[in-house]
Amino acid sequence: MVSKSDKMALERIREFGKQLLEQIKRGESPYFQMPTRTKGNVMFEEGDKTLSLGGRMSTRRFLNYAHTRKFMQSVMIAAATMEYIKSDRTVGKRELYYNLKHSLPNSKQNTFEDDTESGSVLDDLEASLNILREQFHVIAKGRGSIYGDLDLRQAGDEFSCKGLGRGGWLIPGYTEDVEFLNYNADFILAIENDAMMSRLIEEKAWKKLNCLLVTGEGMFPRGVRRFVKRMHEELKLPVIAFVDGDPWGFYIYSVLKYGSIQLAHLSDRYAVPDAKYLGMTMDDIETYGLEHVTEKLKDIDRKKIKEEMQYPWFKHSPEWMRQLKLMAEKGVRIEQQALANKSLAFVAEKYLPEKVEEGKFLP
Amino acid sequence: MVSKSDKMALERIREFGKQLLEQIKRGESPYFQMPTRTKGNVMFEEGDKTLSLGGRMSTRRFLNYAHTRKFMQSVMIAAATMEYIKSDRTVGKRELYYNLKHSLPNSKQNTFEDDTESGSVLDDLEASLNILREQFHVIAKGRGSIYGDLDLRQAGDEFSCKGLGRGGWLIPGYTEDVEFLNYNADFILAIENDAMMSRLIEEKAWKKLNCLLVTGEGMFPRGVRRFVKRMHEELKLPVIAFVDGDPWGFYIYSVLKYGSIQLAHLSDRYAVPDAKYLGMTMDDIETYGLEHVTEKLKDIDRKKIKEEMQYPWFKHSPEWMRQLKLMAEKGVRIEQQALANKSLAFVAEKYLPEKVEEGKFLP
Repeated sequence: MVSKSDKMALERIREFGKQLLEQIKRGESPYFQMPTRTKGNVMFEEGDKTLSLGGRMSTRRFLNYAHTRKFMQSVMIAAATMEYIKSDRTVGKRELYYNLKHSLPNSKQNTFEDDTESGSVLDDLEASLNILREQFHVIAKGRGSIYGDLDLRQAGDEFSCKGLGRGGWLIPGYTEDVEFLNYNADFILAIENDAMMSRLIEEKAWKKLNCLLVTGEGMFPRGVRRFVKRMHEELKLPVIAFVDGDPWGFYIYSVLKYGSIQLAHLSDRYAVPDAKYLGMTMDDIETYGLEHVTEKLKDIDRKKIKEEMQYPWFKHSPEWMRQLKLMAEKGVRIEQQALANKSLAFVAEKYLPEKVEEGKFLP
Repeated sequence: MVSKSDKMALERIREFGKQLLEQIKRGESPYFQMPTRTKGNVMFEEGDKTLSLGGRMSTRRFLNYAHTRKFMQSVMIAAATMEYIKSDRTVGKRELYYNLKHSLPNSKQNTFEDDTESGSVLDDLEASLNILREQFHVIAKGRGSIYGDLDLRQAGDEFSCKGLGRGGWLIPGYTEDVEFLNYNADFILAIENDAMMSRLIEEKAWKKLNCLLVTGEGMFPRGVRRFVKRMHEELKLPVIAFVDGDPWGFYIYSVLKYGSIQLAHLSDRYAVPDAKYLGMTMDDIETYGLEHVTEKLKDIDRKKIKEEMQYPWFKHSPEWMRQLKLMAEKGVRIEQQALANKSLAFVAEKYLPEKVEEGKFLP
C-alpha cells in the first residue's frame, strides 16, 4: 500500500527528473531552483505566526563549475530516495551518507565526503521540491515517547499508546505513515523532561486530565515535532507546553510554536502556531511557594534571555517580556521537577489541573 | 501487590533504621558501615569476571563533625525511599533532590544543596544496604527501547514488545517490577545506535534472526543495562553486542560485560560477564570491503585506545589486543551504519546472519 505522503513525494521527484531531462533534450545546461535559506530570507509572518522563507530564490546549474558537485549530489539523493520510498525503507542521515558514498569512476573524487555534505544537499532538495525530509524517507532521530489513550496503525501493526506499563511508545523518526484510529483526549501535553514524563505516567495524569503525554527528552527532535503537528491537525487537539521556567524551556516552546530559523522553509509542517504555554512561569515561584527550590541563573542563561527579548514573538508580547524581565531581575530559574518539593503527587493533583481548568496559559 | 524487590528493599531499610535505633538506646553515637568506593578498592575478579569492590569498609558516625551532615542525609533518603516504595512511586535523581530539599528549623542550613549531594549519599546507601538504586524506587534515565517477541506485565498492564509499528517500547528507568510472560527469541542483540535499531526493526531482523533488539542510544544507561541483565538471567538469553568499531563501541561493550568503576559495587546486578561481541571489528573492513567508508581516528580516539589497552580484560585477551593494535595501525574506525554502503538490507540479510550462524564473536 502506498501512502498519500509517498505518492506525493514520488510524483515530485519524478517531476524533478523530468524537468532536468527536458532541459538536456533542449540542449540546455540542466538547472533547478530553490528558495534561498540564508537568515536574510527568513521572515516572521505576522499572519500565520510562523517563521517562513521570503521570495528570494537561487538557481543550481550543472554547467556552473561551482555548482556541479552539488548538482550531481542532488540528483543522486533524489534517485536514492525514490528507491527508499518504493521499497518502504527509511534511512537515517548518516546511513544515507554511507549508502551513497563511493568514488567516481576514473577519479579519486568521492560522491560525498561527510554527512554534513549530504545533509545540506538534502535540505536544498527539501526546499526545492517542497517536500519534507521524512517524506523522502530520510528520518530524524528516534527519541521521545508518547503515552495516552490513542490507537495507531503503522507498518501493518495496530497498537495502543496506553497500557504500556511505566514506559510508552517510542516515537520513531518516521511517522508520516501513522494512521490515527481511535483516541480519547482533550489536548496534548508536550513535556520537556523525561523524568517528568515518568512522573505523569505513574500518577495517571493522562487519565485524570484526559490528555496525551508527549516528551522529546529536552529539545524536541524533528520527529516528535512532526508527530505532534500531525496529531494537532488531524485530531484537532490543542497543544499545551509544560517545560522548565528558564530560557531553554522558553526556547523549546518557541520552536514548537513558531518553528526554527534552520527549518524556516518547513514551519508550516512542524510549527503549531496556536500552542499555549502552561508553565513553569516566574509567577509559579511565588504562587506555589517554590522560592527555596529555584536555581541561580548562569551567564549563559542571561545571554539567552537577552537574545530571546529580541525574538519578534516575545518582543511584541507584554506577557512574555514580563516573564523574561522577571527572570533577569530575580536572577533565578525554576525547573519542572521543583514541584516535587510540595509532594510527588502535587504536579498531577493540583498544579496541572488548576492551570488547565482556569486556562492559565501564556500565549 | 508488593513485588519481591520491594519486600526485600523494605526489609533492609527497616533493618537499617532498627540498628540505628538500638545504638541510640544503648547510648552510643549511631553509625553505619559501607564498602569503600574509591578506585583503590575496585578490583577485577578473574573468577566471575566483573569489576567489584574489595573488602575495605568505611564507617559513617553521627557524632563525628565531618560525618553529621551526610549521616542526616542518609537517614532522610532512607525514610523517603520507604515512602516511595510503599506508595509504588518512583522518582528521578533530580526529583529526589527537590522532594527532600528544605531548610533545617532554626537555621539557614538546607538539607541538600544540589543533586550531586543527594546522589552521592544515595550511592553510599546502595553500597551499605546492598540494594540497587532502582530497588529504592530511584530511577535512572528512561532512554533506549526494545523490539521483539516478548510479552511483559508491568504496573497492571500486559503488553507486547512487537507489533509496535516502526517504534518500540521505551524502556523506563524502573523495570524491577517487570514480569516476563512469554517470549520467543534465541538471544538479545544489544545495539549501539538508534538509527541501526530502526533499520533492524524495518528489516524485521528480530524475526529473521529470532532475537530481541535492544538499544541504549549510545552509551547504555543503567536502566537499559539492568533490564538486559534481568532478561539474560531470567530468560537465559545470551547477550550479543553490535556496536561501532571504535574505542567508544568497545567501551560500551566493556561496561555491558564487566561493569563500570563507578558502579563496581553493583556489577553483579548490571554486568553480563558472558556477553559476546559480534561487531564491528577491524577485520570487517577487509572482509566486507568497507575500506572507503572508514573514518580517520582523532587524537581523542587514539588516547582512548591506549587507555583500553590497559584494561585487564583487554590486556590479557590476544583477540582484543589485536583489534586495538589494528585500529591504531590502520588509523581508522568503522561505524555500524557504514554497512549501508553495501545496501540497506545488507546488515540484516548477510552481515548479522553470517556472524551469528558461524558464531564469529570476540570474547
